[in-house]
Amino acid sequence: MKVTIIGLGLIGGSFALALKAKGLATTVVGVESNPLHATKALELGIADTILPLNEALVGAELIVLSVPVDAIPQLAVKILNRITEEQIVIDMGSTKEELCEIISMHPNRHRFVATHPMWGTEYSGPQAATANSFASRNVVVCEKERSDSKAVERVEAIYRALGMEVLEMDAEQHDLHAAYVSHISHITSFILSTTVLEKEREEEAIFNLAGGGFDSTVRLAKSSAETWIPIFTQNKYNILDVLREYIHQLNLFRKALERDDVATLRDVINRANDIRKVLQK
Amino acid sequence: MKVTIIGLGLIGGSFALALKAKGLATTVVGVESNPLHATKALELGIADTILPLNEALVGAELIVLSVPVDAIPQLAVKILNRITEEQIVIDMGSTKEELCEIISMHPNRHRFVATHPMWGTEYSGPQAATANSFASRNVVVCEKERSDSKAVERVEAIYRALGMEVLEMDAEQHDLHAAYVSHISHITSFILSTTVLEKEREEEAIFNLAGGGFDSTVRLAKSSAETWIPIFTQNKYNILDVLREYIHQLNLFRKALERDDVATLRDVINRANDIRKVLQK
Repeated sequence: MKVTIIGLGLIGGSFALALKAKGLATTVVGVESNPLHATKALELGIADTILPLNEALVGAELIVLSVPVDAIPQLAVKILNRITEEQIVIDMGSTKEELCEIISMHPNRHRFVATHPMWGTEYSGPQAATANSFASRNVVVCEKERSDSKAVERVEAIYRALGMEVLEMDAEQHDLHAAYVSHISHITSFILSTTVLEKEREEEAIFNLAGGGFDSTVRLAKSSAETWIPIFTQNKYNILDVLREYIHQLNLFRKALERDDVATLRDVINRANDIRKVLQK
Repeated sequence: MKVTIIGLGLIGGSFALALKAKGLATTVVGVESNPLHATKALELGIADTILPLNEALVGAELIVLSVPVDAIPQLAVKILNRITEEQIVIDMGSTKEELCEIISMHPNRHRFVATHPMWGTEYSGPQAATANSFASRNVVVCEKERSDSKAVERVEAIYRALGMEVLEMDAEQHDLHAAYVSHISHITSFILSTTVLEKEREEEAIFNLAGGGFDSTVRLAKSSAETWIPIFTQNKYNILDVLREYIHQLNLFRKALERDDVATLRDVINRANDIRKVLQK
């Protein structure tokens, strides 16, 4: 299978390596606007060649969009404008509503399968890509009834071959759940980082005491603005909704601590502990 | 060396296992008020015997306090009332100011070494203890000038034999840094958990999408109220100070997102990214 991947960063790069490791891709053609990433991707064997978009589309069985989410909708339209009935286009973005609306009336909509592999790290760029990252992760496929059923079947088979479990969701539900579970975590980490860097002027102390839980909680604060600002702005209303609730609950906790209200603190922590059940399913 | 450990939970249990693994403890006597923990600790070989406090102190070269921090100060006094000039007492609590004040005038203060091994997990009880957890972690020793220098030397040698690096701090500085770096992370995790459980009524969705970063950010929300409420109330003013700043910065981020102020969002994320430098030292 000849695969064209547009955006050879962490996600596109990892997908390319995974396809190659499983023998699913004979050739990976990359499209990459950042020349440093392009060079690195060739060096690391992520892509076999780098081509301009129009040339890269020719003869590709699978076309993958793994660019920041603000670039996906228009790029999706441009690609749907150019492809044939034999080609399949997928994206790997963390938001889906905007994309699904923009392509909804396109005559080639059925060639597009909207997907979101539930994996990422705080690192970015092709140098962060790894071959086995998608294994045993979930991938969400959105609005599959709008895609050609054979195309969906093919895409799901590829993800399953990488060891992933396929879930279905509509685009609106996806964005809501992603705001609640994934996007908010990035904001709490970013702000934890800025707060601690602001208050704690002794960087050595942060480093020395980080074993006390800080490191895992702040890990996502290393994530890039380029990836996350488009996600936050595209999923703004869902994110604001959960962010307001988060701030509200923090204020309740703060007030309980101010007045030594141990019963409320205990109640909050006991409720928080319920996450044990959910994550140990 | 005969060691008596009071409180056979995650920390006391792990310390016991580490001492045994390194051949540093010939006998571990446990003091444990929870009968389930006592039975489990014997079963797991954490303690060789469980005794009431007064009996357990007899003949112990090292006495370790690994109970919740609200129980440590008074227990420290009781133990200092009873020990001989050959015995050393240490604690492993996450706060130090209150303890150091309470024991400050005790005639046996010099037999006490106040320590805080910078390690923990979200799990508790003897079943969560592991033998190799302290290795390559830091341990903070507070107000060592108040302890007998030979006792300090002995305690530091034990920690170093477990593979730990010993740092010095005064009690006030310790509590401030611990609030900024460790304690606040627990609060942000607890509240992230309650917020997501409140907003996200579909627990299945949390489980399915957790790969998107939520799991590591919320990990500490599994931590126990019994351990953490005493830490929060004992270190209340430092924690409130950093918590107010955290809420303030979250509100600034929220407002920037509300008005699509991408420049501010970028500035916040870029500043948050600076944690890369600190944690990769």
